[in-house]
Amino acid sequence: MRIDHIGIAVKDLEQAVETFEAILNKPCDKRETVESEGVETVFFQTGESKVELLGAIGEDSVIRNYVDKRGEGLHHVAFEVEDLEAELVRLQARGFRILNEKPKRGADNKLIAFVHPKDANGVLLELCQTIGK
Amino acid sequence: MRIDHIGIAVKDLEQAVETFEAILNKPCDKRETVESEGVETVFFQTGESKVELLGAIGEDSVIRNYVDKRGEGLHHVAFEVEDLEAELVRLQARGFRILNEKPKRGADNKLIAFVHPKDANGVLLELCQTIGK
Repeated sequence: MRIDHIGIAVKDLEQAVETFEAILNKPCDKRETVESEGVETVFFQTGESKVELLGAIGEDSVIRNYVDKRGEGLHHVAFEVEDLEAELVRLQARGFRILNEKPKRGADNKLIAFVHPKDANGVLLELCQTIGK
Repeated sequence: MRIDHIGIAVKDLEQAVETFEAILNKPCDKRETVESEGVETVFFQTGESKVELLGAIGEDSVIRNYVDKRGEGLHHVAFEVEDLEAELVRLQARGFRILNEKPKRGADNKLIAFVHPKDANGVLLELCQTIGK
């Protein structure tokens, strides 16, 4: 497994893009909206992993709820796997709870699923598998 | 820049090591105590980046304070830079506040410094430079 990306929940996406362009000293690489989650994403490639900024769109956004409750900051870490279904079976057999039993479509051409943070020391853990565009 | 590691603050380091050995499906790679910070660290290599579990030792530990206040979970993200001093000068010129003006010795043969989370959308951002062992 390798880290595919870290996700950062932010209040003002445009301000955050400027901030991380300054920190990482490079322009962002990609933007993508995931309407079903109420999320607009901006990616920065950093080595083999990415930084993903997550801004809320609409009223019913998981990111808006998160930022309102916990404030801005590190939201999740995603590990790339080759076979997501097999990985979910393996983890469930070890007692890990999966937040969405069926993998769903995420940003960046990925199938994704999340491990319950209570089973991973408070970390919201995403597993993702790259699929065709 | 690339992600050197993500740091995860945990309550019970031995339990967390077992959990992440199960998630990552591999044994941990390295343990190291940083007495000056009151921290015991355990590293997992995952691709070019690492997962660092952070447990508290002693009463005056930054990790104990963090876990007591915010609970377990993602604590910081570290980016590897070639020249830490130059990077700090660059970021300060852009208005970023650095938590420790002088780079300090961290775990894993690194010189490290932290950017203020208020200047990085709530993310505790470590910059690190590998030094001789």
